[in-house]
Amino acid sequence: MLDQSTICAISTPPGIGGIAVIRLSGKEAISIADKIYQSPVNGKRLADQKANTLHFGDIKSGDVLIDEVVVSLFKAPHSFTGEEIVEISCHGSVYVQQMILQLLISNGARMARPGEFTQRAFLNGKMDLSQAEAVADLIASGNAAAHKLAISQMRGGFSREIHQLRAELLRFAALVELELDFSEEDVEFADRHALIELSTRIASLLKKLTESFRLGNVIKNGIPVAIIGETNVGKSTLLNALLNEDKAIVSDIHGTTRDVIEDVVNISGTLFRFSDTAGIRETTDVIESMGIERSYNQLDKAEIVLLVTDISQSLQPILDRIVKIRRKIGDQQLIIIANKVDIAADKSKSKLSEFPLLPNEALVFIAAKSRANLEELIQSMKQAVDFDSIGPEEVIVSNVRHYEALSLAFSAIEKVIEGLKTGISGDFLAQDIRECLHYLGEITGEVSTDEILGHIFKHFCIGK
Amino acid sequence: MLDQSTICAISTPPGIGGIAVIRLSGKEAISIADKIYQSPVNGKRLADQKANTLHFGDIKSGDVLIDEVVVSLFKAPHSFTGEEIVEISCHGSVYVQQMILQLLISNGARMARPGEFTQRAFLNGKMDLSQAEAVADLIASGNAAAHKLAISQMRGGFSREIHQLRAELLRFAALVELELDFSEEDVEFADRHALIELSTRIASLLKKLTESFRLGNVIKNGIPVAIIGETNVGKSTLLNALLNEDKAIVSDIHGTTRDVIEDVVNISGTLFRFSDTAGIRETTDVIESMGIERSYNQLDKAEIVLLVTDISQSLQPILDRIVKIRRKIGDQQLIIIANKVDIAADKSKSKLSEFPLLPNEALVFIAAKSRANLEELIQSMKQAVDFDSIGPEEVIVSNVRHYEALSLAFSAIEKVIEGLKTGISGDFLAQDIRECLHYLGEITGEVSTDEILGHIFKHFCIGK
Repeated sequence: MLDQSTICAISTPPGIGGIAVIRLSGKEAISIADKIYQSPVNGKRLADQKANTLHFGDIKSGDVLIDEVVVSLFKAPHSFTGEEIVEISCHGSVYVQQMILQLLISNGARMARPGEFTQRAFLNGKMDLSQAEAVADLIASGNAAAHKLAISQMRGGFSREIHQLRAELLRFAALVELELDFSEEDVEFADRHALIELSTRIASLLKKLTESFRLGNVIKNGIPVAIIGETNVGKSTLLNALLNEDKAIVSDIHGTTRDVIEDVVNISGTLFRFSDTAGIRETTDVIESMGIERSYNQLDKAEIVLLVTDISQSLQPILDRIVKIRRKIGDQQLIIIANKVDIAADKSKSKLSEFPLLPNEALVFIAAKSRANLEELIQSMKQAVDFDSIGPEEVIVSNVRHYEALSLAFSAIEKVIEGLKTGISGDFLAQDIRECLHYLGEITGEVSTDEILGHIFKHFCIGK
Repeated sequence: MLDQSTICAISTPPGIGGIAVIRLSGKEAISIADKIYQSPVNGKRLADQKANTLHFGDIKSGDVLIDEVVVSLFKAPHSFTGEEIVEISCHGSVYVQQMILQLLISNGARMARPGEFTQRAFLNGKMDLSQAEAVADLIASGNAAAHKLAISQMRGGFSREIHQLRAELLRFAALVELELDFSEEDVEFADRHALIELSTRIASLLKKLTESFRLGNVIKNGIPVAIIGETNVGKSTLLNALLNEDKAIVSDIHGTTRDVIEDVVNISGTLFRFSDTAGIRETTDVIESMGIERSYNQLDKAEIVLLVTDISQSLQPILDRIVKIRRKIGDQQLIIIANKVDIAADKSKSKLSEFPLLPNEALVFIAAKSRANLEELIQSMKQAVDFDSIGPEEVIVSNVRHYEALSLAFSAIEKVIEGLKTGISGDFLAQDIRECLHYLGEITGEVSTDEILGHIFKHFCIGK
């Protein structure tokens, strides 16, 4: 399964900088580097140097000096990939980076594929598959919460516990299968009580993990926020003000925004995923009513619902709308936005202020057009999902692939428990256990196919 | 003069990548790094480790794990800056890079200014000023010729020789000045013959170096190419075809392109600096005739003149134009371009082909609109300046600051030679020698002011 070639790539971000690092991994890494490296110390070769040391010297293409560099040496198995690794730290000229890469290739290395260094780390047993996936998540993490998730997963996170429980379950699977060989004799090698106890522990962990996915997904992909309200109350204007750009169509014609537009924006470290929706009103326009239908569907997916109202208009329909929306949403945060406060009557404002709110509701007065009081709205949105409350030891699943495997493993282990209670035959029991083992193994990579690996690592950057 | 603070910066290109490197230099570099680094080996501290070694470990902000990193240790004076240096190689997430930088700053480091690491290398005597400048040139170099120049300058290039000659001249200056103290006694400590011999050697080197600047400048900043020709023959179309984009105004109205537009383009490794110029024709329009004047001025600055003609028009005015242009240009390469070859009469084409060319001239038939035969034109342009003929030992000046200092030093040394020949008094002689010493010292940095240094290093990137 393991490709024995020596791979190389520029591992630092593309472009010009002070320095750049070119990474080389594989059996021939040091010998290839020695072909283009020349030490100021006469006759000194990288091959004779100790692991974890740094060496100044020249990179040369024949007689032509390409750059003065510092070479880092890591030796198998104590390296990121578990192979010999040479890292060449050169001047950050794009030309120099390309020249060194070409030199390495013409001396026997080949260009690494995306994520191939991390893939080798996995294949060489330096980390399990979920840890390898966390490397990409860590690199992509753009805020504190996503970073916390990725780093916990990279450190083993829940995969260590899954690996352990799977090992225990595997032992039971072997015993149950052994019983099948002795089926004539009606023996029971696998202690059914212990198996129920283990399966229940596994089921409980899987349940906790699958349930954490809602939060994990929100952290990784942004808090889904639905903007809803009557047509022409300023929903698109508000979205634009929040996005600080002009993506949605802003218009005075009723019912302009017919499609659900999604925009992800990082507001001082918190990721929000806004969907602007069609206005809600009674309509006979078929396309528009389809848009309104979608608006309501968005509410289920949202963590925060922004109900935009025009406080410069008459108040009673606004109060009616609030009551109506309350019935449509569950435990999400509802933020009632009283827009156009700058042109509203004082009486309307004070009356709405007195309207009794539920615990998961907030009321904010703004003027979207002039961006007045937007800061209060943002604070209110941030309070809706409190990432800081996540404990340092709390395990959260944020990867769709893990979520799916965990869900399937949970179904399988529930069948095992059910089967044990109803006393189904050993062969059916063995099959359910195997199914659970399979899905648990997919998470850690103990069960993996080229297809799964290909899908995971193609999303990595080259050089990692 | 030396700032004792410990500086830090992200040294790799900005953005997301596999890995990023954060550099820390100064007396406290290792102790600051120790405050945020935790080794998997209990109690291991960076301060106790040997120079030129690599250390895996965690970067922590209090109890919060920020990243798993590899730390490189370099110790004074055997480092790039000559100070203690710690390089932290972390995952290439922008968030992680920023977090580590913030941690270093909150633990006592400060952000490095542009080029501050290299400036410290200069101030600590690790390199002279022209070598420090070459670091920036090397990073900016985008092709083989510019790279060759920068790397030769970084290795000492001509500055070593200048440093040596300056030291010899300095000895003579001291002797001449000593004579002034004994002026009553009419002694001659400085051997005048030896001083003439040294001054002549210096003058000869300076002449060679200043003359090399024309080529050095062309390599670094691009070969200046002037595009000239009658209005409406397709100059702008040709420039756009060469640039592969639409920067110049293309129009059918005579005299559209009134201003000199400069565009730098890298055509398969060679840098060209194109100036599109106003058309040449008799005109009464004041603004337009100013443009035509500028066109002729451009010819002096160009290494290559592209005379664009419309071969679909009558031939005689074209032949007249060639003869006229010949008188306007010196030893530059003249490439006569017969444009619109696709709609030209065969008779015109064959007649122009027979027109006798001078050694520094070439004739190329093209159709700019359809990009036909552009490749032949590019080859012809590349042959005009042959970078490959530059010997590996040949010293070429490419830096305007060096060119100016060399020119001033040359004037001063010529005055010294002249003075020696005419036997001027010792105090005048000493003054001329001091002047030459001053300008030679500016190149190597033996004479430098904060202003000179500030001007040089502000053009560096942060992190180098």
